[in-house]
Amino acid sequence: MNQTNAKKLIIKTFKNYGLNNQHATICANALINAELVGAHSHGLARLVSYCNRIKKKVINPKPQIKIKKISPSITHVDADNAVGFIGADLGIKHAIINAKKTGIGFVGVKNSGHFGLSGYYAEKAAHKGLIAFCFTNAPPAIAPHGAKKTLFGTNPICFAAPTGTKIPFVLDASISMINRGRIRRAAKLGEKIPVGVALDKNGNPTIDPKKALSGLQLPIATFKGSGFAWMVDILSGVITGANHSGKVRDPFDDFSGPQNIGHLFIVFKPGLFIKNYTKRIKENIKRVKKLPKIKGVEKILYPGENKAERYKKNLNKKINIPTKILNEIYSLNKS
Amino acid sequence: MNQTNAKKLIIKTFKNYGLNNQHATICANALINAELVGAHSHGLARLVSYCNRIKKKVINPKPQIKIKKISPSITHVDADNAVGFIGADLGIKHAIINAKKTGIGFVGVKNSGHFGLSGYYAEKAAHKGLIAFCFTNAPPAIAPHGAKKTLFGTNPICFAAPTGTKIPFVLDASISMINRGRIRRAAKLGEKIPVGVALDKNGNPTIDPKKALSGLQLPIATFKGSGFAWMVDILSGVITGANHSGKVRDPFDDFSGPQNIGHLFIVFKPGLFIKNYTKRIKENIKRVKKLPKIKGVEKILYPGENKAERYKKNLNKKINIPTKILNEIYSLNKS
Repeated sequence: MNQTNAKKLIIKTFKNYGLNNQHATICANALINAELVGAHSHGLARLVSYCNRIKKKVINPKPQIKIKKISPSITHVDADNAVGFIGADLGIKHAIINAKKTGIGFVGVKNSGHFGLSGYYAEKAAHKGLIAFCFTNAPPAIAPHGAKKTLFGTNPICFAAPTGTKIPFVLDASISMINRGRIRRAAKLGEKIPVGVALDKNGNPTIDPKKALSGLQLPIATFKGSGFAWMVDILSGVITGANHSGKVRDPFDDFSGPQNIGHLFIVFKPGLFIKNYTKRIKENIKRVKKLPKIKGVEKILYPGENKAERYKKNLNKKINIPTKILNEIYSLNKS
Repeated sequence: MNQTNAKKLIIKTFKNYGLNNQHATICANALINAELVGAHSHGLARLVSYCNRIKKKVINPKPQIKIKKISPSITHVDADNAVGFIGADLGIKHAIINAKKTGIGFVGVKNSGHFGLSGYYAEKAAHKGLIAFCFTNAPPAIAPHGAKKTLFGTNPICFAAPTGTKIPFVLDASISMINRGRIRRAAKLGEKIPVGVALDKNGNPTIDPKKALSGLQLPIATFKGSGFAWMVDILSGVITGANHSGKVRDPFDDFSGPQNIGHLFIVFKPGLFIKNYTKRIKENIKRVKKLPKIKGVEKILYPGENKAERYKKNLNKKINIPTKILNEIYSLNKS
């Protein structure tokens, strides 16, 4: 399907489920972006789940969002259980506004939902010449170090910085060995998952995505990864007023209430302490790129380059939507 | 040696090398703390290297430190090549002052040196009821993903938060499989290092600490760890005005100039968005601790608990200083 039609289809679907045009467009832009960067697990495959949650009244299609300015740098957003993209879009917007004005923007969002790719928001700040951290929590997927039950989400650490080129530095590293969306998509399409990324509910290694989803995902770097996931839960859940410590509901299986996910955006000017940031970051990247490479590596890339490459390549292509997912979306528009 | 005497010996040594009493005391407190938490690689074993650098005129024993207030939240410290502890101590102090006043403290430090344990500074903020990030760069130890030459330091991600108890949450995770200090100490004492943490200069796995020091350390989580190290280099080196991208000098081998390490402290109030932080964090920790445990695990601990336990146990004990290290320190006081 070409991109214009795909976007129209998403907007039409969300409006069919009660969203206004502006909110539906924000959501459509995020889903199309995920497809273009090749993160299909965060793209159109997700649309049905958002609509299901609206239907079950655990996502609010007509949110009354409250924005509370706490200081010139600090803002709190109560997203009133909107689709996650909408609260996150407001969160990063206000963090950018505050950072432009005072040097730092610090914005917490509560009563939000799954917002897609963290890098999508962080790079919005980088494109405006700002450095950004972006944190979100997520439903249980990873067991804390020492526990045999999942509690933390895949809670990414996401950081973006301008590079003086069109392609910002965007590190978007989930704390799990692979992201949960990839496992969900594999389950949906009947594919396998790699070895060493998940255990089944009995604690045995598995390559069956369904068993992985009911079992537990392995964190990166054992206890360090578990600590990072806990840190992200404190930052995005505990301090924002959102759910935390395993209380974020699974978007696919748990319709007993809204997810109440939390996000935290920390944005700042790169030139607070120096006058020549662009020169310095260019020099930094240049020195890394010039290092001798290991066999088989042609170029050393900074985080975000690969993704930008995929985006550019896909920008003038059709979006390949698996028939199963497309049929699901069509059926959302029939009722 | 009892702690009082160990502290006196450190202070005497630093004063012998030109530091004033206040600066010598700041350094002694940091080194004794490292011993008490069991991080011997960051304790008295380091004293000789600081003194050597002073002697070679690449650490300034009488720094003219400049503190520039950029906004009520933002401060820049030029540490004038003081011993790292001194610039870091000022950095976290000003971050705490700014956060108490405005909600957020954002402090960059340049022209600094190796400051010991990141957690030592982050927990100072947590003990004052604040949440803190603490970043520092370090001499080359890790190869960027795809490169076969080291460039990034072990660049820890460090985060602390109050818990409503005497023991804060303190995550201090270096991006290498093990910290470089442990490898240095093993080299000094003729011990081996674990399998899987380092390669020799030809890219072969090694358990010989000397070969590891001239080779490369492995990052956690392959490309994700490499990305984290790069992020920390941008945060603490590029934006603060310090050295970065492999230009931080090795404190033990390179006397061609000061290290010019950079640090970044981001400190904020945990109650910016909520009224009941203490209740929420207690609930968070309680839920994690209540999870079923894997076989052999008695208690689930949050980051920082183990360290606090070691500190408490060592608080009334003598400090065990290996004879080789003690003799080195004595010889520093003979000349």
